[in-house]
Amino acid sequence: MTAAALARLYHFVAGNTGPWQIEQAQTLCGDPLPAATRIAVQADTSGFQSAAASWSLRGITSNERYVTRSEKSALVARQESLGRAQATRAALIPIRKNAAWWALVQDERRQILEEQSRHIAIGLKYLPAIARRLHHCRDLGDAEPFDFITWFEYAPEHGSAFDELVAALRASPEWQYVEREADFRLVHSGV
Amino acid sequence: MTAAALARLYHFVAGNTGPWQIEQAQTLCGDPLPAATRIAVQADTSGFQSAAASWSLRGITSNERYVTRSEKSALVARQESLGRAQATRAALIPIRKNAAWWALVQDERRQILEEQSRHIAIGLKYLPAIARRLHHCRDLGDAEPFDFITWFEYAPEHGSAFDELVAALRASPEWQYVEREADFRLVHSGV
Repeated sequence: MTAAALARLYHFVAGNTGPWQIEQAQTLCGDPLPAATRIAVQADTSGFQSAAASWSLRGITSNERYVTRSEKSALVARQESLGRAQATRAALIPIRKNAAWWALVQDERRQILEEQSRHIAIGLKYLPAIARRLHHCRDLGDAEPFDFITWFEYAPEHGSAFDELVAALRASPEWQYVEREADFRLVHSGV
Repeated sequence: MTAAALARLYHFVAGNTGPWQIEQAQTLCGDPLPAATRIAVQADTSGFQSAAASWSLRGITSNERYVTRSEKSALVARQESLGRAQATRAALIPIRKNAAWWALVQDERRQILEEQSRHIAIGLKYLPAIARRLHHCRDLGDAEPFDFITWFEYAPEHGSAFDELVAALRASPEWQYVEREADFRLVHSGV
């Protein structure tokens, strides 16, 4: 097993370079992030120039936290990978949940996330159009500004479907536990 | 909220300094760690001298992953804190689980951990004698050598109870997923 084969940690670096141009930057709640025009996603930061970054967030892919086996099978059967040629639109949505959420036990969180909020079922409705990768931040260290970063990719014609998806989640009981959220809509436009 | 109030990340630094003397070092499975005579537990590593360390592990406390509300209430009602004057014995047990474990979904892992292995119920039996803090390592980065570090503290007269506790867990179905495990028994003996 090489380090590359195990890469799970991703950096989202915002500044004035990177292949993704920021078309729209929105702060839903909590402190805003500093202004930037472009974002790069990097698994390897050996060539990383932090001085040039306006901000940078990091997150790690991890094991399943809430899905059941049948939900996972349904997701795997329908989902597509990141990096599709036609998926020239992306969204970067970092989220922080409040202390009340993290004080809940596992089955209480599952109850809110799925039985009350249909988070998994809502996501499934938009497959395979919307590809998605979830990154966890909360357990990377003591001082992470967000708990999760979700990265989405889709074709331009699925932009309004993506708007529906995030609106449905934000209207759900789960979102009462969100205390910080930003939303960056991106267009792929060379380096 | 200050950074200190939020401290969840702990470092376990082994070498020839630190308040905990290694009385017994055992490798249950997987690669052994290098030899050392003492261990220090540090939340803050500002004065950390890595050159002097034989090895160092880190882990972060986090939200509950498996307990139900009633199990958590039972644990909280009986558990005691680390740092009790009479608890001059400690154990440091780092564990790594295999890929099969991490490929399971949440309810499959809970089923093995508690319904099959009684992990939570076994721990509860030894409260309040054995105090415990669980640290997660797996999501700290790409290359952590272990998934969990558990730190236990107890009085000398509870040493055999502690042996029973770890023997019961190691005999359980959950432990079939453990691919690396070390066990350090420690005596508090000044700096």
